[in-house]
Amino acid sequence: MNEVILKNNNLVMKRLWNLDTNTYDEGALDKRTKEMLGLVSSMVLRCDDCIKYHLGKCHELGITTAEVYEVFSVANIVGGTIVIPHTRRAAEYWEALMGEAAEQ
Amino acid sequence: MNEVILKNNNLVMKRLWNLDTNTYDEGALDKRTKEMLGLVSSMVLRCDDCIKYHLGKCHELGITTAEVYEVFSVANIVGGTIVIPHTRRAAEYWEALMGEAAEQ
Amino acid sequence: MNEVILKNNNLVMKRLWNLDTNTYDEGALDKRTKEMLGLVSSMVLRCDDCIKYHLGKCHELGITTAEVYEVFSVANIVGGTIVIPHTRRAAEYWEALMGEAAEQ
Amino acid sequence: MNEVILKNNNLVMKRLWNLDTNTYDEGALDKRTKEMLGLVSSMVLRCDDCIKYHLGKCHELGITTAEVYEVFSVANIVGGTIVIPHTRRAAEYWEALMGEAAEQ
Amino acid sequence: MNEVILKNNNLVMKRLWNLDTNTYDEGALDKRTKEMLGLVSSMVLRCDDCIKYHLGKCHELGITTAEVYEVFSVANIVGGTIVIPHTRRAAEYWEALMGEAAEQ
Amino acid sequence: MNEVILKNNNLVMKRLWNLDTNTYDEGALDKRTKEMLGLVSSMVLRCDDCIKYHLGKCHELGITTAEVYEVFSVANIVGGTIVIPHTRRAAEYWEALMGEAAEQ
Repeated sequence: MNEVILKNNNLVMKRLWNLDTNTYDEGALDKRTKEMLGLVSSMVLRCDDCIKYHLGKCHELGITTAEVYEVFSVANIVGGTIVIPHTRRAAEYWEALMGEAAEQ
Repeated sequence: MNEVILKNNNLVMKRLWNLDTNTYDEGALDKRTKEMLGLVSSMVLRCDDCIKYHLGKCHELGITTAEVYEVFSVANIVGGTIVIPHTRRAAEYWEALMGEAAEQ
Repeated sequence: MNEVILKNNNLVMKRLWNLDTNTYDEGALDKRTKEMLGLVSSMVLRCDDCIKYHLGKCHELGITTAEVYEVFSVANIVGGTIVIPHTRRAAEYWEALMGEAAEQ
Repeated sequence: MNEVILKNNNLVMKRLWNLDTNTYDEGALDKRTKEMLGLVSSMVLRCDDCIKYHLGKCHELGITTAEVYEVFSVANIVGGTIVIPHTRRAAEYWEALMGEAAEQ
Repeated sequence: MNEVILKNNNLVMKRLWNLDTNTYDEGALDKRTKEMLGLVSSMVLRCDDCIKYHLGKCHELGITTAEVYEVFSVANIVGGTIVIPHTRRAAEYWEALMGEAAEQ
Repeated sequence: MNEVILKNNNLVMKRLWNLDTNTYDEGALDKRTKEMLGLVSSMVLRCDDCIKYHLGKCHELGITTAEVYEVFSVANIVGGTIVIPHTRRAAEYWEALMGEAAEQ
């Protein structure tokens, strides 16, 4: 799907995506912290695709289940019970990521 | 799915869920009013799962179709036409709840 | 301020405002319930001016402090802690409305 | 689905829908501009059904792919990367609309 | 205030701001249309500072009062009555911009 | 102001506030990380009072200016340019906090 957008060659879109990648690079804060920041933002804004993306990155970086659940708890307190359905789907996806890792 | 979250035993999440249940208990306002407050909030925040949950509760409490549609109208006026797709799904779900009840 | 908008005579804006008034008319639901629906929607969407408007109407309709606080509690649970600053301002405004009424 | 809502004959809902139609009529601004305004609003508010509706209208009015992508870019800059998943689905839908037109 | 942010020399912030400027450059769509897209997005997302910024640009580009009010009407229909307080402030600001221009 | 709400003794509100405090306690994640999670969430949800609260906590915990600006950059990329006015106010407030500390 990205290809559909990229082939249309819109400069603003391309630059925004590059910038998005740069944002999560190691800096004053490490990548782990930055991915958790991306995750909690995606949760309070209730974007399931964004949540999945950051959960995948958190998993790659070795963030633990206990840590992920504390990110979930901040998101639910700040954003309220409307975040619950997204938390359910997030927990399910995290479970799947951990399951795949355990099988390997 | 709740079990996935609950088994991870995050205290903040558990307490938030208990508190969520307490919020809709009979008090100065009756349960009917509180469920309608939960419904309209879920609609303007555009959370389909939350809408379904509160529609189910409204149905159990004997709220009528005319009353539910007045909740819909407040949600659409306050939240604008972006609430319309959620209202469509809500109306369809309510229709199903009424249909099941009629069959019994 | 309304006059500035109205003198420009935009038909859509005028009709939307008329419709807004109709929405809170007595119907299958009474005015009290409808104003509480308007209040809770304004709170979760975090619109201070809208909150004040509906608090004024709630006050006129004799809604009690205990009832208003139950509306606040639904708004805070559904919308999360970002609703707290708006709840503080709402509580302060309600206090002022009750104080004025007590003085008369 | 609209029939389910309409048969319940809620006056506020009916009038809101009529008003919605009027809003996009030719006026001081032409229809093309208005549909692009509807599209960008739907994108920043992240309503997929609304996005599809306005993309369909944009297509009927002969708005070009380059123009649509500039609307996408405004939506992504103003609304941030949480708009990206909706932009992906929008680009895919636009591609389909253009494909159908090419086949005719 | 911008200086406070800029002196801290955060690369992502700087690039985002450059990109923001590029977004509204003449392209497949003219500047007028793009500023109206920026305005309507700011209105439905209810950002008063952003609304003022785009109103200023619209004024510079010679957009008429009738055109601005049609942007307002799209914003109010899509975003609902919670957009009204922002529309009031927008109309007041536009009035001031037109007044200053008339005096010159 | 809190006293106004607390004296009215609404149980849900009291518990939510206690829970809010618990959420940011040291756990699997340290307090520093949790306060940054609270900050970024407040920024993307555009709640100035919440942003100030978390900036104060970040300052107490010795988070550096470079770190705070990386939180700002995540918030701006995820939430878009509508976060900019809030970032301006946040940067100004942070500057004041650092200034007071330097004077002591």
